[in-house]
Amino acid sequence: MSGFPSSLDNLIDRFASLPGVGRKSAQRLAFHVLSLPDEEAFAFADAISEAKRSIHRCPVCQNLTDDEQCAICTSAKRDQSTICVVAQPRDVLSFERSREYNGVYHVLHGVLSPMNHVGPDDICIKELVARVSAGGVSEVIMATNPDTEGDTTAMYLSRLLKPFEVKVTRLAYGIPVGSNLEFTDEATLTRALSGRIEM
Amino acid sequence: MSGFPSSLDNLIDRFASLPGVGRKSAQRLAFHVLSLPDEEAFAFADAISEAKRSIHRCPVCQNLTDDEQCAICTSAKRDQSTICVVAQPRDVLSFERSREYNGVYHVLHGVLSPMNHVGPDDICIKELVARVSAGGVSEVIMATNPDTEGDTTAMYLSRLLKPFEVKVTRLAYGIPVGSNLEFTDEATLTRALSGRIEM
Repeated sequence: MSGFPSSLDNLIDRFASLPGVGRKSAQRLAFHVLSLPDEEAFAFADAISEAKRSIHRCPVCQNLTDDEQCAICTSAKRDQSTICVVAQPRDVLSFERSREYNGVYHVLHGVLSPMNHVGPDDICIKELVARVSAGGVSEVIMATNPDTEGDTTAMYLSRLLKPFEVKVTRLAYGIPVGSNLEFTDEATLTRALSGRIEM
Repeated sequence: MSGFPSSLDNLIDRFASLPGVGRKSAQRLAFHVLSLPDEEAFAFADAISEAKRSIHRCPVCQNLTDDEQCAICTSAKRDQSTICVVAQPRDVLSFERSREYNGVYHVLHGVLSPMNHVGPDDICIKELVARVSAGGVSEVIMATNPDTEGDTTAMYLSRLLKPFEVKVTRLAYGIPVGSNLEFTDEATLTRALSGRIEM
């Protein structure tokens, strides 16, 4: 018993269930929402319901969309023969911000992780294989994170796609632009060395 | 343009408007909500609407309640002649957790702050004066935070309540229990010295 009304307790619980939000922060957020004008608080509630109701996965690339297919898959300006494979919808955002990539995406919604009981059937791998086997794809770029699980997933997928004779590439990993050799960790340096290119 | 569906953008905007939540965190929270099962996501939305709809201020102490009056003001076990004045509803929670205080509260919903244009009419001061002037109150404990604004508010209130010949006290401020003199700042030490009591 916190001494708060139960509906406030319930709201605090909801906020506390969000990732990275502790009990104290949840309280602060709940009090903030209560202090909002009525229409803004209700708009917040509606934003949650509305997003949940309208957003689903694009049947082609599995990215989130509120249309039948996502804007990237239906765009005539995008190169449909190059597929960039990412783990999460937010990774698509990172690429789009760079404005350098003109192909399409495939969102796995996770990476292989035996530790967390995530196997090939738990992420959108069969959808990727179906896209590649349907033909018209010249290159698949593996853009999962450069960590153990991301690397494993990329390796697994590249073997899976081998029979289709499609070019499978992996993002270059090395020293970040603007960074400093002194503060670059050994793993990154090793990657930068092994991935060195001729000048 | 983020490349996300507009309802997702809207949800991210809502989360980003919360205090202490940046753009990246807002994205993470929005994706988390989308990944919840339908019933949990809608329950979150309902928790906001429901809290906003049902919670209002107790007409006596101004604390948040979903009843006509709050549970503390209506409790026969609480000493109605001692009023502890706090800035925020969450401060009531802190006192209740200590299980040491048996009086009632008065929540100001803010402190005097000329810098932020908060004057005596912007916080629940006239409600406190009305309670005290109605009689039956023997002591008013000022429990605003020990900072400039909290001190100013306590000082202002104590002068305002002088005509009613009620005992006005202030919480003792000093070295926290379990703390260490070495790491106690000068302001706290000064307070601890000036507030010393005979053994």
